[in-house]
Amino acid sequence: MANEVVLLGYWPSQYGMRARIAVEEKGIPYEYKEEDAWNYDRSPLLLEMNPVHKKTPVLIHNGKPICESLIVIEYIDEVWNHKSPLLPSDPYDRAQARFWADFVHRKVYGAAKRIWTTKGEEREGGKKEFIECMKLLEQQLGEKPYFGGDNLGFVDVAFVPFYSWFQVYEKFGKFNMEAECPNIIAWAKRCLKKESVAKTLPDQHKVYDLAIWIRKKLGVE
Amino acid sequence: MANEVVLLGYWPSQYGMRARIAVEEKGIPYEYKEEDAWNYDRSPLLLEMNPVHKKTPVLIHNGKPICESLIVIEYIDEVWNHKSPLLPSDPYDRAQARFWADFVHRKVYGAAKRIWTTKGEEREGGKKEFIECMKLLEQQLGEKPYFGGDNLGFVDVAFVPFYSWFQVYEKFGKFNMEAECPNIIAWAKRCLKKESVAKTLPDQHKVYDLAIWIRKKLGVE
Repeated sequence: MANEVVLLGYWPSQYGMRARIAVEEKGIPYEYKEEDAWNYDRSPLLLEMNPVHKKTPVLIHNGKPICESLIVIEYIDEVWNHKSPLLPSDPYDRAQARFWADFVHRKVYGAAKRIWTTKGEEREGGKKEFIECMKLLEQQLGEKPYFGGDNLGFVDVAFVPFYSWFQVYEKFGKFNMEAECPNIIAWAKRCLKKESVAKTLPDQHKVYDLAIWIRKKLGVE
Repeated sequence: MANEVVLLGYWPSQYGMRARIAVEEKGIPYEYKEEDAWNYDRSPLLLEMNPVHKKTPVLIHNGKPICESLIVIEYIDEVWNHKSPLLPSDPYDRAQARFWADFVHRKVYGAAKRIWTTKGEEREGGKKEFIECMKLLEQQLGEKPYFGGDNLGFVDVAFVPFYSWFQVYEKFGKFNMEAECPNIIAWAKRCLKKESVAKTLPDQHKVYDLAIWIRKKLGVE
């Protein structure tokens, strides 16, 4: 079977980065198509491939769409299972990896967004929750080089895209990530040595400039 | 290895029901322990087993906890893989099942909750979104007896617990489920013929009485 792979993404989206890191880790040849999510200028292809959520990322494998970033990573891991396993083979370890990826997906994303899209008490609440999340993730990482152990795994792929937004959280939340969670910073830098991650993550300054633009659009300032 | 299985649940929780249906479908001997989530009277065991979210359901397998309902179902399906497969074996079909279970988990739950815990425009918005979700799910079901095909699958287990809340949605949303989505009602009644579902789902009247009590507590009326 031919393996035609197209990935619909949006460059600053942590969710889209996940899918991109996964295809890069597996060494899958693919075509990347950029969708401009903030201008709501969705392509007919995106609307056809994800009619329910109308969101990126979408992985199109031989014409068939797979949506939702964590589901996309699991799919990639199951189909291209010849190298770089992302989920552990033991069912309990798999459940744990899914738990922490889900934690990042829901808790970290939500708290982080409040830091840069809200003001006053709400922003402070977001910041407090975000830092608590980072400390829990530091505990979870422990002495391992990656959440996946000796290699990049499911939780690493789910979480490392947030690194490109750290400057946004720091500047609008007025705190220092390195001081709050040095082990997360060390881990992220370790991940960035992987070509799959380095190729995918945008520059923090570029993301910061975008965040300023979005805040104006949202009327936060 | 001995298989000691304990399930921490809360009877009206759709999420807890999922875990219970899954263990029942697999025919796993287990001990059920009820947690009273609405009185916030969490047991030391729950706090120990799910320190991050402090929520049910938790499946405790030989002393080790698995949290988050959809992750629990996947775990059960992977460990007890000798009978009643819940997820399909084909990776694409698995991704589709995960997509629709996630859709129920996030979209259906959120919309449904707005119907009975809010008023006015917000309630109407919840009702509109809930009915749209039901119509999408009807399309997805198509002519199949179950979302899983000829047998109960992952999406069925994720979705059918909502049936015990249908009376709540109907009474507070002032609409008729049978008129809006007859195929969902027919499907739910089909699921209820399965012992695993019939044993697990509480009576709709009992759930309705609880909803009245919670609404008072929340100050909705």
